[in-house]
Amino acid sequence: MRNTFGNILTLTTFGESHGPAIGGVVDGFPAGMAIDLDAVQHELDRRRPGQSAITTARNESDRVEVLSGIFEGKTLGTPIGFIMRNTDHHSADYSEIAKCYRPSHADYTYQAKYGRRDYRGGGRSSARETACRVVAGALARQALGQLGITVTAYTSQVAGIKLSESYTELNLSAIDNNIVRCPQAEKAKQMIDAILQAKQQGDTLGGVITCVIQGVPAGLGEPVFGRLNAQLASAMMSINATKGFEMGLGFDFVNHRGSEVLDHFAMQDVKVRTTTNYSGGVQGGISNGEDIYFNVAFKPVATLLQDVATIDTAGNPTVLHGKGRHDPCVVPRAVPIVEAMAALVILDDYLLNRSARL
Amino acid sequence: MRNTFGNILTLTTFGESHGPAIGGVVDGFPAGMAIDLDAVQHELDRRRPGQSAITTARNESDRVEVLSGIFEGKTLGTPIGFIMRNTDHHSADYSEIAKCYRPSHADYTYQAKYGRRDYRGGGRSSARETACRVVAGALARQALGQLGITVTAYTSQVAGIKLSESYTELNLSAIDNNIVRCPQAEKAKQMIDAILQAKQQGDTLGGVITCVIQGVPAGLGEPVFGRLNAQLASAMMSINATKGFEMGLGFDFVNHRGSEVLDHFAMQDVKVRTTTNYSGGVQGGISNGEDIYFNVAFKPVATLLQDVATIDTAGNPTVLHGKGRHDPCVVPRAVPIVEAMAALVILDDYLLNRSARL
Amino acid sequence: MRNTFGNILTLTTFGESHGPAIGGVVDGFPAGMAIDLDAVQHELDRRRPGQSAITTARNESDRVEVLSGIFEGKTLGTPIGFIMRNTDHHSADYSEIAKCYRPSHADYTYQAKYGRRDYRGGGRSSARETACRVVAGALARQALGQLGITVTAYTSQVAGIKLSESYTELNLSAIDNNIVRCPQAEKAKQMIDAILQAKQQGDTLGGVITCVIQGVPAGLGEPVFGRLNAQLASAMMSINATKGFEMGLGFDFVNHRGSEVLDHFAMQDVKVRTTTNYSGGVQGGISNGEDIYFNVAFKPVATLLQDVATIDTAGNPTVLHGKGRHDPCVVPRAVPIVEAMAALVILDDYLLNRSARL
Amino acid sequence: MRNTFGNILTLTTFGESHGPAIGGVVDGFPAGMAIDLDAVQHELDRRRPGQSAITTARNESDRVEVLSGIFEGKTLGTPIGFIMRNTDHHSADYSEIAKCYRPSHADYTYQAKYGRRDYRGGGRSSARETACRVVAGALARQALGQLGITVTAYTSQVAGIKLSESYTELNLSAIDNNIVRCPQAEKAKQMIDAILQAKQQGDTLGGVITCVIQGVPAGLGEPVFGRLNAQLASAMMSINATKGFEMGLGFDFVNHRGSEVLDHFAMQDVKVRTTTNYSGGVQGGISNGEDIYFNVAFKPVATLLQDVATIDTAGNPTVLHGKGRHDPCVVPRAVPIVEAMAALVILDDYLLNRSARL
Repeated sequence: MRNTFGNILTLTTFGESHGPAIGGVVDGFPAGMAIDLDAVQHELDRRRPGQSAITTARNESDRVEVLSGIFEGKTLGTPIGFIMRNTDHHSADYSEIAKCYRPSHADYTYQAKYGRRDYRGGGRSSARETACRVVAGALARQALGQLGITVTAYTSQVAGIKLSESYTELNLSAIDNNIVRCPQAEKAKQMIDAILQAKQQGDTLGGVITCVIQGVPAGLGEPVFGRLNAQLASAMMSINATKGFEMGLGFDFVNHRGSEVLDHFAMQDVKVRTTTNYSGGVQGGISNGEDIYFNVAFKPVATLLQDVATIDTAGNPTVLHGKGRHDPCVVPRAVPIVEAMAALVILDDYLLNRSARL
Repeated sequence: MRNTFGNILTLTTFGESHGPAIGGVVDGFPAGMAIDLDAVQHELDRRRPGQSAITTARNESDRVEVLSGIFEGKTLGTPIGFIMRNTDHHSADYSEIAKCYRPSHADYTYQAKYGRRDYRGGGRSSARETACRVVAGALARQALGQLGITVTAYTSQVAGIKLSESYTELNLSAIDNNIVRCPQAEKAKQMIDAILQAKQQGDTLGGVITCVIQGVPAGLGEPVFGRLNAQLASAMMSINATKGFEMGLGFDFVNHRGSEVLDHFAMQDVKVRTTTNYSGGVQGGISNGEDIYFNVAFKPVATLLQDVATIDTAGNPTVLHGKGRHDPCVVPRAVPIVEAMAALVILDDYLLNRSARL
Repeated sequence: MRNTFGNILTLTTFGESHGPAIGGVVDGFPAGMAIDLDAVQHELDRRRPGQSAITTARNESDRVEVLSGIFEGKTLGTPIGFIMRNTDHHSADYSEIAKCYRPSHADYTYQAKYGRRDYRGGGRSSARETACRVVAGALARQALGQLGITVTAYTSQVAGIKLSESYTELNLSAIDNNIVRCPQAEKAKQMIDAILQAKQQGDTLGGVITCVIQGVPAGLGEPVFGRLNAQLASAMMSINATKGFEMGLGFDFVNHRGSEVLDHFAMQDVKVRTTTNYSGGVQGGISNGEDIYFNVAFKPVATLLQDVATIDTAGNPTVLHGKGRHDPCVVPRAVPIVEAMAALVILDDYLLNRSARL
Repeated sequence: MRNTFGNILTLTTFGESHGPAIGGVVDGFPAGMAIDLDAVQHELDRRRPGQSAITTARNESDRVEVLSGIFEGKTLGTPIGFIMRNTDHHSADYSEIAKCYRPSHADYTYQAKYGRRDYRGGGRSSARETACRVVAGALARQALGQLGITVTAYTSQVAGIKLSESYTELNLSAIDNNIVRCPQAEKAKQMIDAILQAKQQGDTLGGVITCVIQGVPAGLGEPVFGRLNAQLASAMMSINATKGFEMGLGFDFVNHRGSEVLDHFAMQDVKVRTTTNYSGGVQGGISNGEDIYFNVAFKPVATLLQDVATIDTAGNPTVLHGKGRHDPCVVPRAVPIVEAMAALVILDDYLLNRSARL
C-alpha cells in the first residue's frame, strides 16, 4: 500500500524531486540471476529528462547506484536497494510555487492531506519518482527475458494524431527510431511537430501509450481481486498523469455485439490458441497464452509555460508565471515507465502462480 | 491479494456459483455503527438475477445471512462474516460445458492455471461472486452516509446508445425508475429495446457505467501506488466483464491541450474549490474535495443463446448449444456492483487517512 | 492483519462465541489436492469441548461445513470457505457478565477499544475462534503430508509437572493415548490428577506445549522480518492464553556458553546435517533441514468457578459468581491448535520459497 | 513480509553487511512532526560497534543519511528513505569463510535457500541490518514521546547473572550508566566481568533483555492474529540471535494457579486500573492501560574466537580459525534494537487503532 507495489515481488520507492536522492527497494527478486546493469541504465536513459528536443531540459544524469542484493554480478535473493542522487536542482525556480497552488497539480491535495508539502519541483508528487520504477522494471524485464516474455510499449496517439494500425501491423523494433517512440515514421513526425508547436506556445499535449506483452504462458493472474486486468490497471493508473486504461478492445467493446467479438479457440501445435484476440490475452482475469495488450491515456500535463491564474495558499487570486523546464508531452518518456510497471506485474504473477498447485 | 480487497478495510470473498454457498468477510469495519440490514438486502435485490425482463431468469433470492460482527444491531469492530446460499442450481444445464471450453470465458484459463475447474455455472469465475461485494459495499455505504459521502452509479451507454449529458445535467434520483438504470427516460427506453432485441437474437450487448462520488473531503488517497485513480481502477477492473476505466475526462483528455483543461481554483465559503472538474476530483492521486467521477466499460458478455463453435477439453472442434439463463447485457445489474466497489475504496481511504498526521 | 494470518497461504476467520456461527476462508491453498474431510473433523474433535473429564462441559458438535473451494473431492485453487454453527448457547449464563469486567479477561480491553463488546461467552475474544484455525491447519497438514512433513505437538508441562525427556526420547505416537495429550504415561496421570484437583477447587492450571516439525527441507523461512522464528512466534502468541514462546533451547540458551551449544555440521548420505540441534532447526531464520521444535507457555486461564471480586462497567466493586462450563486447563485442547498454526506457517513458507529462485 | 515490517506504519530494510550500504524506508509515518536527527544518531551510537570494551572492535561510524520524507525539519508524510554507508570493510577477513559453513550461522541455510550467499560478514544475515531498525525505531519513539508513551529496555540477565528485581524496583534512568546496560550497578559489574572473561577465552555469552512500555492507552492491538503479544513476539523474534519471548509473567505463569495471578480491577481517578500486572499490560491481545513488559532471550552467538571444526562447501571436514572482530555478548548492543522494534509496533498499533470506530 502507499509506496509499495506488488504481491510477492515488491517495489517500495522513496524520494522527493528535489531532496537529496530518490530510490527504491525491490524485494522478492529471485536469486542467482546475472544482472546487466548497463541494460538498467539504458532504460533509465530512455526515461531521462533532457534526452531530446521534445522533453524537459532538466538535466538529470540519473545514474543508479545499487546498494545491495547483487553480489559478484548476480542477485542474492535479498532486497535490491538502489538510489539516484538528485543533481540538477534549480530550487530557486520554486520560490513562487511555494506560495501558491498550481491548478491541476497535486500542490493543494498534498497540503490538504498532510498539512504541508515539499513545494520544490512537486516533491513526492513529481514524476521523478517513476525513475525508480524504471530501475525495478528493468530488473524484472531481465528475468522475464529468461522466460521468453517480452514487454513492448509505444506511443500510439498524441493529441489528435492516432495510429490506425494495431500493434500486430507495426514494426515494434522501430519504436526507438524516433524521439516520440512511435513505430510508424510518418505519424511519428506529425506527433513530433505537434509537440514542438505546443511547446512553442507554452502548452502541453496528451496521448496514448499501447503496451504489448508477449510470451506469457496461460494461467497467470489471480481470481477475483487479483485479476491481471485489475493488477495492470492499478499499475498503470498509479503513473503520473494517467487518466484511462483499457484491455484489448477496451471501450470499443461497447460498439460490438457479443457474437462479433468472441475469441474462438483453435488448436495449434497441440496448444490451445484463439483465432482472434479481442480480449487482450486475458479471460476471467487469467492469461490465456495470447498476447496481452492494453492502452493507457495520459492527460496533457498541467505545467504550462504561460501565465496561469490561480490562488495563493491564503486563498487570494494570483498569477503564476510559467517557467522552469517541463515536458510539453510526457508520453514519449512514459513509454519505458509503462513497460516497467507491466514487467513488474507479470513477473510478480509468474512467481505467485508457482503456488497454484502443490 | 487474490480473494481479498482493500488496505485496512478489507473484503475477502469465497464461493463458487453452484457450490453450497457464497460469502465473505469484512474486516476492519468501524465499531458501534447501527446497521440497516434491509438496506443491505435492498442493494442485493438491485443486483439480483431475475429482477426484470432484461436480466437472466436465474432466480436466486440472495438472502444474506450475517454470521458475526453485528450484535444488538450494531457493529462490534470484529469481522463481519456472511453467506448466501446458492439455491437455484440447474447443474444439469452444465453437463455439456464440463466437456468443452466456452470461447471468451474463463473455462480454459482456470483449467490452465489450476489443472481443474468447477464447470458448473462458471464456478469461481462466475459474476455470482459479486453479490458478496454488494453486501460489503452496502455496509460501507452506510458508514459513508454518516460522513455525508454518497456513491451513485448509472448506465450511461448500452451498445451505441449513449447519454450526451454529463452527470451534473442528469436527475440522479431517477436512476432506479427504469430497469436499465439510466436516469434519462428516453435513452433508457432505447437501451431496453436494444437489449430485448439482442436477447431475442440470443446475442449480448456491452455498455458503460458512470459513477459519481460526492462529499469526499480533500486529502483521501495515498501517494504513488495507492493513488485513488489506481485503487478505483483496480476495484473496477476486478469486476467481471470490465474492459476499460477512465477518470474525469479520461481518454477524452487526449483531445485537449493542457491550457483547455486546467481546473482553476476559486475560493468558495472559505473552501478551496475548482471552477471546473475535468480531473474527476483527484489530483496527484488524492481527492481535492470536488466530485469524483469515472466510467467503466463492460464488454458484451460471451454467453450467447446461439450455437457456438468451440473445442472440447481434448482439443477437438465441437459446437456448444447455447442454453441456460443469462443476461443479454450485464450493465444494469452491474450498477450496484460498481457502487459497492467504489464505496469500499472510499471508506478504506477515509480510515487510512486518519493516520496521515499524528 | 487483524483477522487474517499468513503470506500467500492465508486464513481469515470470523465469528463470535455465541453468534450464529464461526468460520473462515483459506486462500491460496494449492489446487488439485484430494481432501479428507474426515481427517479435518478428527482434528476438530481433538479440540472439541466436552471431550473428556478435564475439559469444559460445553457441548459443541463443531461440525464443519465446507462451502467452497473443494469440488468432486479435490481443491479447486479457489478460496475454501467454511462455517461451524454455534449450537450450544447458554446465553442466559452471561447476563451477569454483561454488567461487569472479569479480571484478566478481554472484557474491558474490547470495551476500551470498540466502545462495546459481545459479552456472551467472550464474543470474539473467546478461544472458540481457534476451531477455525484447526480446520485450516488440518487442510495444511494434508498438503504437508504429501511433502513428507509432519507436525506433532504434545503437553510437556502442567503446573509443576514437567517432562524431563526431550521429544527425541518420547514415543510421539502415544500422545493421544490419554486425555491430557502427554506421551509419557506416568506424568500424564499426574497431570490429569492435578487438573481434576484444580477443577474441584474451581481453579485453573497453566502448562507448556512442545511442538516438533519433521521433514522440513532446508531453505524455508524468509530473511529478516519473515524469519521462521518470528512467524512461528507470531502464530503461537496469537493463540488465546499464550504467554511465552521459545525455539530450540530457548531461554535455556542463556545458561550456556557459545562453545557449548554450537550445532556442528556432519555430512550424512551426501546431505548437510548437524550432530546436535540446540537451535531448533533454524539458522538465520531459515530452516536447516533438522527438526524444528519449540515450546509455548499457556497461562492458567482466568475463568474460575469461584467468587471473584471485580468491578461493574460503571466502576463499582462487585462480586462475580463463577459459573458456566470452562476448562480447568486449556493445554490439552490447545495441542491441535498449536499443530494447526504450525502447519499453516510451514505450508505458507513452503509455497513462498518457490519464488526464491527463477 | 520478508524485508518489510508493520501494518500501516512499515519499515522496509535492505543491505548486506559488506555491500556499499545498508538502508531502509519508513512508510506511513505521520506528517508534520519535527524530527530530531541527533536523537536518531544517539540511538545508533548506542547500537554502534566499537562503543566499549565488551563489544566488537569493528568500527562503523554508522552515520545515517536521510534521503527523503523530511523537509525543513519536519516529516512530509511521504516515505522516509535513509542509508548508512558500510565503511569499515575488512573483506579480506572473510576469504576462509567463503569456502565453508560456520556452525550455527546462516551460511548454510542462505546457501540452501538461494543457491548462493554473500559470505562477507554474514551478508544479509548479519546483525548489521538491525542498525536500520534503530533508525526507524528512533523516529517512532519521537512520535510516541509526543503521545506520552515511553519504551525502555535493559539487560536483565547475562549468562547466570540475573536481576532479582522486577522493573518496578529498578532505577530505569540508570540503564546507560554502564556499558552492559543493566540498571543495577552491582549486577552490571558482574555481567561485564563475565563478558570480559568469555571474550578472553574466545567464547560468547547469552542473556535476556527486559523491555517496558509505559503510557500506552487501553485499546491498542488487534483481535485474533494481530494481538499485541503476537506482534511483539514477531518483532522480537525477528532480531538476530533471539530464541525466546515472554509477556508479563511469561513461562513463570505455569508455576501459578489461576486464582493466584488474576489482575484485579480497581478504579483510580475514574480510570479502570488493575492492582497487579501479571499479564504484562495486555488482555485478549489488547492493551489495558497498564505497563506492557516482556523478556527476550538471546543465545550466546556462534562466532567464537577459537578454532572450530566445521565443513567446507563441498562437505569435507575443515577447521575454521576464529578471528575477526565480534561481540562476546550481543545483549548490551541489542538493547536499543529491542526498544526500536517495540516502538515500531506500538506506533503502528496506535495509528491502526484510529480506525476502530467511525
